[in-house]
Amino acid sequence: MAVYTEISDDELDALLDQYDLGQALSCKGIAEGVENSNFLLHTEGGYFILTLYEKRVNAEDLPFFLGLMEHLAAGGFMSPTPVTTRDGRNLTEVAGRPAAIIEFLDGRSVRRTTPAHCALLGQTLAKLHTIGSDFTLKRPNTLSLASWRPLYEACARSCATSLEPGLLSEIEAEITFLEGHWPSDLPSGVIHADLFPDNIFFLKEEVSGVIDYYFACNDFFAYDLAICLNAWCFESDGSFNITKARKLLNGYREIRPFSQEELAFLPLLCRGAAIRFLLTRLYDWLNQVEGALVKPKDPMEYFRKLQFHQAVSSVAAYGLD
Amino acid sequence: MAVYTEISDDELDALLDQYDLGQALSCKGIAEGVENSNFLLHTEGGYFILTLYEKRVNAEDLPFFLGLMEHLAAGGFMSPTPVTTRDGRNLTEVAGRPAAIIEFLDGRSVRRTTPAHCALLGQTLAKLHTIGSDFTLKRPNTLSLASWRPLYEACARSCATSLEPGLLSEIEAEITFLEGHWPSDLPSGVIHADLFPDNIFFLKEEVSGVIDYYFACNDFFAYDLAICLNAWCFESDGSFNITKARKLLNGYREIRPFSQEELAFLPLLCRGAAIRFLLTRLYDWLNQVEGALVKPKDPMEYFRKLQFHQAVSSVAAYGLD
Repeated sequence: MAVYTEISDDELDALLDQYDLGQALSCKGIAEGVENSNFLLHTEGGYFILTLYEKRVNAEDLPFFLGLMEHLAAGGFMSPTPVTTRDGRNLTEVAGRPAAIIEFLDGRSVRRTTPAHCALLGQTLAKLHTIGSDFTLKRPNTLSLASWRPLYEACARSCATSLEPGLLSEIEAEITFLEGHWPSDLPSGVIHADLFPDNIFFLKEEVSGVIDYYFACNDFFAYDLAICLNAWCFESDGSFNITKARKLLNGYREIRPFSQEELAFLPLLCRGAAIRFLLTRLYDWLNQVEGALVKPKDPMEYFRKLQFHQAVSSVAAYGLD
Repeated sequence: MAVYTEISDDELDALLDQYDLGQALSCKGIAEGVENSNFLLHTEGGYFILTLYEKRVNAEDLPFFLGLMEHLAAGGFMSPTPVTTRDGRNLTEVAGRPAAIIEFLDGRSVRRTTPAHCALLGQTLAKLHTIGSDFTLKRPNTLSLASWRPLYEACARSCATSLEPGLLSEIEAEITFLEGHWPSDLPSGVIHADLFPDNIFFLKEEVSGVIDYYFACNDFFAYDLAICLNAWCFESDGSFNITKARKLLNGYREIRPFSQEELAFLPLLCRGAAIRFLLTRLYDWLNQVEGALVKPKDPMEYFRKLQFHQAVSSVAAYGLD
């Protein structure tokens, strides 16, 4: 939940002067996204999402994110399209922040995911990878392997004593293992890198929207699957739902078949994906901002997911033959 | 800003089954209202506000609040209309809370109020008093004179030492004064009792909506004006803007003329209105909930407003002859 920046009437009017959307009829802060300020904007031209990019998003990355959304939508993917100004820009500024006005997509994210949702997720992720493959801008994954040790060290410095005994050394041992075994070459392209249930809208048993491209980057396609296996296939009691995993992976390969190498590396990639979210959550947990509106998520959830994947020897554990 | 309760898909579907609004297309938590959870709901029937009433609202008062909105809207006042279920109820339940679906009104609240806004506010308040006068349900003002001493005593018990020296005794002396001088009989009826700038929407230089009736009650009309004088006519540096006050009062009496007695009591009512918001803000300040999303408002703002009105001897100070 996040609305960090307030927009004055004058600022909103000046912003809309640059677009062909008519006047603002209403503008309400919405509880969506945690990195940015989001508003539901009603203008004479329709309903839109107005996003203000706050400090955690690097402004230099915005042309990649917004360009990717345009590219995906133009290719038939259910990404919202950024609206362009009269002179063709998709990125503007309001209240001292970079800003974009983005198409409003109907649909609702699901809190209780089912195997049927996971099958749709798999197909959707494969479509994103396929349609994104000829997007020309590049962005490295700044939260992959190379970032984990520095992030671990920042956590260790922050407040080591407040953690469960032994947790830090287990994390460090895992990072050392991953550094020694991470694949150097797998099928790659644009990945979403944050496709949690919050970020997919469903409507009448179909996917109606995929949002929040602000972690998108170039990396292994199978790593995106690993992120989704972690985010969608564990139940709230920590158990792994192999039916959901099988649906997710089979949905994916209907659209884009896996290579044998991708399948072989999947357990390792799941461990990496677990470490990535464990570390960023741990960092946020240890560096809580007084008065912040966002409650940090539990890092231990991802420690338990990591432990599950450490015991996995092949993709059979994820429901594939 | 407030979204306290999350609604599951199943709960939302079950709720909409009771209405003739079609299926839910999207439902987003919005940062509006501080006492309730509010969602912007898009259904096949249009856009609506879905409000879930949280603990601070007494469920027994909801028929008064929702009935008042219906009554005002039916009388041509720019209140949003509650939507009724197929069997005619305006109050339902979702996620274990009392809930209502209310018409979505366009417009934007202003942060920087002008004399022109104050003139429109005055007319609007007088219309509310006039159109509300034949509403048959009654609700006493639970935050008027009789509540101030108990509220003061609760504040004094809470954390007296953290307050500016002498503040508590000044508040108590003021309450004693108000108890001795409060009018027993002035023109009365339904008042809004919380008509802050947040709660009026403007569109194209007109008032397009008045929202948030959850403090509405039966009390002196002029007390509602006193609340508005406090909320709209002080600048952020604490100075009183007599031009705004004159516009507000003159706007009001275009629609509903004041009696001489109302005018004579206005400075005293302004002191009472200042004490009312001072006390509730002080109470919230001293009883902050750990992890609450709402930052308490500064009580001292209303202490300074009180001091201004204590020095006022007649409505000439508010710009009237």
